[in-house]
Amino acid sequence: MKIIADSVTAPHGFLAQGVEAVIKKENKKDVGVIYSLEPCIASGLFTTNRVRAACVDIDRQHLEDGAAQAIVANSGNANACTGQQGWDDTLAMARLAGELLNISPQDVLIGSTGVIGVNMPMERIKRGICEAVAGLSRDGGHNVAEAIMTTDLVSKEIAVELEIQGKPVRIGAIAKGSGMIHPNMATMLCFVTTDAAISRECLDKMLKTSTERSFNMISVDRDTSTNDMILMLANGLAGNRRIIDCHGDDYRIMQAALDYVNISLAKMIARDGEGATRLIEVEVVNADTYENARIIARSITASNLTKAAVFGEDANWGRILAAAGYSGVDFDPNRVDIYLGAEKMAENVAGLPFDEERAREELRKDPVAIKVDLHAGKCQATAWGCDLTYDYVRINAAYRT
Amino acid sequence: MKIIADSVTAPHGFLAQGVEAVIKKENKKDVGVIYSLEPCIASGLFTTNRVRAACVDIDRQHLEDGAAQAIVANSGNANACTGQQGWDDTLAMARLAGELLNISPQDVLIGSTGVIGVNMPMERIKRGICEAVAGLSRDGGHNVAEAIMTTDLVSKEIAVELEIQGKPVRIGAIAKGSGMIHPNMATMLCFVTTDAAISRECLDKMLKTSTERSFNMISVDRDTSTNDMILMLANGLAGNRRIIDCHGDDYRIMQAALDYVNISLAKMIARDGEGATRLIEVEVVNADTYENARIIARSITASNLTKAAVFGEDANWGRILAAAGYSGVDFDPNRVDIYLGAEKMAENVAGLPFDEERAREELRKDPVAIKVDLHAGKCQATAWGCDLTYDYVRINAAYRT
Repeated sequence: MKIIADSVTAPHGFLAQGVEAVIKKENKKDVGVIYSLEPCIASGLFTTNRVRAACVDIDRQHLEDGAAQAIVANSGNANACTGQQGWDDTLAMARLAGELLNISPQDVLIGSTGVIGVNMPMERIKRGICEAVAGLSRDGGHNVAEAIMTTDLVSKEIAVELEIQGKPVRIGAIAKGSGMIHPNMATMLCFVTTDAAISRECLDKMLKTSTERSFNMISVDRDTSTNDMILMLANGLAGNRRIIDCHGDDYRIMQAALDYVNISLAKMIARDGEGATRLIEVEVVNADTYENARIIARSITASNLTKAAVFGEDANWGRILAAAGYSGVDFDPNRVDIYLGAEKMAENVAGLPFDEERAREELRKDPVAIKVDLHAGKCQATAWGCDLTYDYVRINAAYRT
Repeated sequence: MKIIADSVTAPHGFLAQGVEAVIKKENKKDVGVIYSLEPCIASGLFTTNRVRAACVDIDRQHLEDGAAQAIVANSGNANACTGQQGWDDTLAMARLAGELLNISPQDVLIGSTGVIGVNMPMERIKRGICEAVAGLSRDGGHNVAEAIMTTDLVSKEIAVELEIQGKPVRIGAIAKGSGMIHPNMATMLCFVTTDAAISRECLDKMLKTSTERSFNMISVDRDTSTNDMILMLANGLAGNRRIIDCHGDDYRIMQAALDYVNISLAKMIARDGEGATRLIEVEVVNADTYENARIIARSITASNLTKAAVFGEDANWGRILAAAGYSGVDFDPNRVDIYLGAEKMAENVAGLPFDEERAREELRKDPVAIKVDLHAGKCQATAWGCDLTYDYVRINAAYRT
């Protein structure tokens, strides 16, 4: 597998474009379209929040047949908590894109991100969709990555090429994150494309597994969004022998590549969390089950006190252990070791004498590496988060106004 | 019931003292003793964190017989994650206090708060205990309230007098809070005294009920501590007919008074949360069950995004609804109304046109009142939290160093 400097338009047959439609206050791109020349096998995972944007429920319906051909996305307005009007507006977006692209509205998926509870400026949205469709191109992936940004500082995209039975297959993806990030099925807008030929069953399973290992392992602020979604389109143009066996070698090779893509984007999202200065990587090793390792790793990355200690370069390992302790997992605290980078801070739960300056150096690194050894089994999980800073408070004290 | 300007020494037969033993860096009181002239019926509730300080487990053992006569507390060092040494040190504290007070060490309860993972400076602790016991007095309650403070800005104490069958009965209490506050059985050090005559069974039940309604309804940072505890001593000196019926009038009168005491202290803790500028009161009404109302109210008070919006006086009600949505409770988002003080912000999940200036005024009040109406039943719960500010980050970026 090799990494290629490209975006969602890397796989064969995908075009995209992002344009400025003045949905956001700033003069930035805010409406984007991704389109496949051929119909695609499609899969999606969505927020588990009981309060959901209309696009989440409509996309779920549109994915019932496992097929789609285009994604329309906007930033600046999440179109969540907007009642019947929000529902109608989302359908209108799919209808317009379908007409312009000459496909069924059922094959158009919608993703929105931004402020909650405000109706969409539909005239501008529609103009944006028209302009984006008119400008669809092989080079437009980066513009769509920009068009889905809100408080993100950098756009997030990645593309890889792998080989299946001698045929080159590509995967491209873009994502946005920043705030309200504690995904519980998928993250705030991630769109993945591939030219692989793959069955719907295999694609669904692969995407779910990969999301569990990537986006469901990051947290910026423990606030699960109303609009989280990851969508994946596979148009089959790579011409590989179709992947239909979820246990075969081809499946495994592609799963590894998709994991690489999604974990890379998930880490980009955590690193670019609102106000963040550093990525925090928490590895829990020697747990009795994978699930327990996951829960503890996530609990530590979500702890405000741990996040603030990293920002302050304060080797306060007691907070790490406390966050493991309240995670809900049953473990023996008397057998736990904690490492900060190469420095062992605590053994069998009791603190070791450690070099304050070396510990501080580990906390200045990016990423900051935290390891918790439970001495309870052989399972391992990694989660990612970011530090809690003055800027997180500043950004969120005045997001809407 | 009337409120009296007093502390844990308000009930008959209780003495206390707090002294400076140089456990904290600052020149402040940090060791305290509360003592009853008569043996007490005692009850306690403790943190549910898997990682617990030795004092939590030792107190649990000491409470097995439902009796105690003294509480020894210190701030500046939590004596948590300190292994066998921490265990031995806690026992040594109980032994010394028992000798000095001429009671069994089994009847001494210990509470510690402060930094995690550092051994106790036992010589200074012991000198502090000697000094506090020597100085025990009817006026010492306030000094103990000071001696348990860490990053608290104000000491927290309260006393009330009620009447049971014509006899005056008093309840006094002190608490400390500030950071690592998301209690899940009780909060970081609360000591309640009463001269009521009451059975162990009734005291246990009353304290548990009251804690659920008070300390278990507050959150400063969603970090559950390793040392949380609430202890209650009842010495019977009020001479009231002993309360033995958990369903009788006497029990109900005293439960109401204890609820008032604990809710008052819980609100003081939330208001004095690290860096807080305002208390947030979230009322969830018309829920199908009390438990669901509780979970949603707590989820909203714990949301970083909601807390930051309050700090920024930003009427971002979508974050309130999102926090309700990810609480795990099953409810119909399409029937939810949201109020900010007197201003109705959203009806049936969709936003209403509202006066930005009036909404801002509601957010400047202290407490800030948020109400969520689920239109699903008749149950109600209230939770308390505080805003998320630059100062929370500042305090926690450099707590230990």
